[in-house]
Amino acid sequence: MYQAKAYAASSSSSRLAYTTIQRREPGAQDVQIEILYCGVCHSDLHQARDEWNSVMPTVYPCVPGHEIVGRVTKVGPGVTKFKAGDLAAVGCLVDSDRTCPACRAGLEQFCSNMVLTYNFPDKHLGGVTYGGYSDSVVVDEHFVVRVPANLSLAGAAPLLCAGITTYSPLRHWNVGRGQKVGVVGLGGLGHMGVKFAHALGAHVVVFTTSESKKEDALRLGADEVVISRNANEMQRHAFSFHFILDAVSAQHDINAYIQLLGRDGNLTLVGAPEKPLALSSFGLIFGRKSVSGSPIGGLAETQEMLDFCGEHKITADVEVIPIQKINEAYERMVRSDVKYRFSIDMASLKTE
Amino acid sequence: MYQAKAYAASSSSSRLAYTTIQRREPGAQDVQIEILYCGVCHSDLHQARDEWNSVMPTVYPCVPGHEIVGRVTKVGPGVTKFKAGDLAAVGCLVDSDRTCPACRAGLEQFCSNMVLTYNFPDKHLGGVTYGGYSDSVVVDEHFVVRVPANLSLAGAAPLLCAGITTYSPLRHWNVGRGQKVGVVGLGGLGHMGVKFAHALGAHVVVFTTSESKKEDALRLGADEVVISRNANEMQRHAFSFHFILDAVSAQHDINAYIQLLGRDGNLTLVGAPEKPLALSSFGLIFGRKSVSGSPIGGLAETQEMLDFCGEHKITADVEVIPIQKINEAYERMVRSDVKYRFSIDMASLKTE
Repeated sequence: MYQAKAYAASSSSSRLAYTTIQRREPGAQDVQIEILYCGVCHSDLHQARDEWNSVMPTVYPCVPGHEIVGRVTKVGPGVTKFKAGDLAAVGCLVDSDRTCPACRAGLEQFCSNMVLTYNFPDKHLGGVTYGGYSDSVVVDEHFVVRVPANLSLAGAAPLLCAGITTYSPLRHWNVGRGQKVGVVGLGGLGHMGVKFAHALGAHVVVFTTSESKKEDALRLGADEVVISRNANEMQRHAFSFHFILDAVSAQHDINAYIQLLGRDGNLTLVGAPEKPLALSSFGLIFGRKSVSGSPIGGLAETQEMLDFCGEHKITADVEVIPIQKINEAYERMVRSDVKYRFSIDMASLKTE
Repeated sequence: MYQAKAYAASSSSSRLAYTTIQRREPGAQDVQIEILYCGVCHSDLHQARDEWNSVMPTVYPCVPGHEIVGRVTKVGPGVTKFKAGDLAAVGCLVDSDRTCPACRAGLEQFCSNMVLTYNFPDKHLGGVTYGGYSDSVVVDEHFVVRVPANLSLAGAAPLLCAGITTYSPLRHWNVGRGQKVGVVGLGGLGHMGVKFAHALGAHVVVFTTSESKKEDALRLGADEVVISRNANEMQRHAFSFHFILDAVSAQHDINAYIQLLGRDGNLTLVGAPEKPLALSSFGLIFGRKSVSGSPIGGLAETQEMLDFCGEHKITADVEVIPIQKINEAYERMVRSDVKYRFSIDMASLKTE
């Protein structure tokens, strides 16, 4: 074991603050990574504040962070994919059973024995796993992915959650050239959805409630922008979409978007509104439409996504912050005051 | 034109009563059918009572009925599929534009110019189309299907709506051997879903609120019956279903069934609850599950379904009534007091 620097919440109401945590020495299959950047996901805030108490109560101290990029500092003797000095990244998963049907299909995100990057029982050290708000992490190489050298590391970090969460359903539903694809909600997830759908060759329509986001949506890759409160504008697109990526985490009317889907069209939820949404059965029946959900992606697909980002020069739009600004960043995130993701420059942790 | 006998509602509050209506002489592509049996669908009642006023207001007199079987009495000179004396059937559609992408794909049920069997503008005679509560009907041969000779005609009639409505989603979602399939709601639709899922080789689980339906569900082809109010029994099936056919038209908790779906599982709604259903996004996200809707089926698939019924000796369980009992049958249908479909013996109309 060795000590690593970290920022942790010590209770649901406390601000995140500097601390030190234990990390394991790399085992045979392990990769030790010096963390250079860590994206700030809304999940981090929910977990730190114990807002998911009913399903996943928080164990304190809690070190959030599952959008990790860095450089390999040491590898175990059995590691074949990485060597010291390589760029490497870790997302939401650090382990799974590797034997169940989901794992064998490369869909570790559905393994019932998966281990999340933070606040999950740690098989090695006991207690819970600690995430990426830290200067170092040790992870089995199967759960470590390569980062294309041409990408900004600060902008690459959010690809590990916001990126794969939007890329995976676009690929699962075969989005591509000749298709009309909608993106609802232009935040951390949505802005990645626009970039990916555009790069996959689709005609991309962004739905937004505010005229002020129009210009930015077009810059990100949208072909059209629809102000969702304008019923006439919505009606013009009735029955025309192949796929809609719904990245809104607040309550909203999904039926208004379902009616824009064409025959056999699908709307996939990646935001997760806390309360149930109202779903009209008629809207689904006439057109044989479907509503789905999708969580992150498997390791193979996460690597595919990063390679795709390398080819297409895609990163998240980020505002880089020092770790000392994390509490302020949380407050701004609650107000959606960020374009479009905070990325922590972990060099700032050296001075603690 | 010629006169046909029929039963019609003359207002939203009036009982159905005997009348006569005009039918066109068969044109070049038309088939004239002597109606022998007509199934009684819940839609008939909604339309007769103008309960869908906001979306499809009823024009009176209204002659319901879209589960029609009978014998061909005359064909136009261009007709190739039928000759006088053949058994024939007509379902919910009597016309479509035949040129749109949906029609070209054999999915006439999604044609935006389709003509329903009753209460839809009649291009030939003006006014609206009149359905199967009648002794005769004239329909373009493309919208007429063949009936296997080995089936009871009374039991075959409901296949034209209840049958295809349940067969189509089971086929669309590739239900078959090695799969675990649920059916929710054991009524006119649900009992057909059980028969089809069983004949397709799936392991069929029926969900019901009442212990009293258990025996009947097993007789119809269920392998297991789950009392849906028993939380422990439900929990035993968590995350295990490939597909669930939801044939409930009352308000109900679909999330309780979504949690029983395995990875990539689908729940398809074929009942159409009037008010929106509450949908938990978390339930869809963890498992990449989907909720769909599905309406009837295209003509090619309707024929495939009837041929499948011939091979597997499948018909609906019906209670045969004379047309003079139709108002009583409506009252009983509202109380779900029928196992599982009324089928009108149209010979009863001869005495009017």
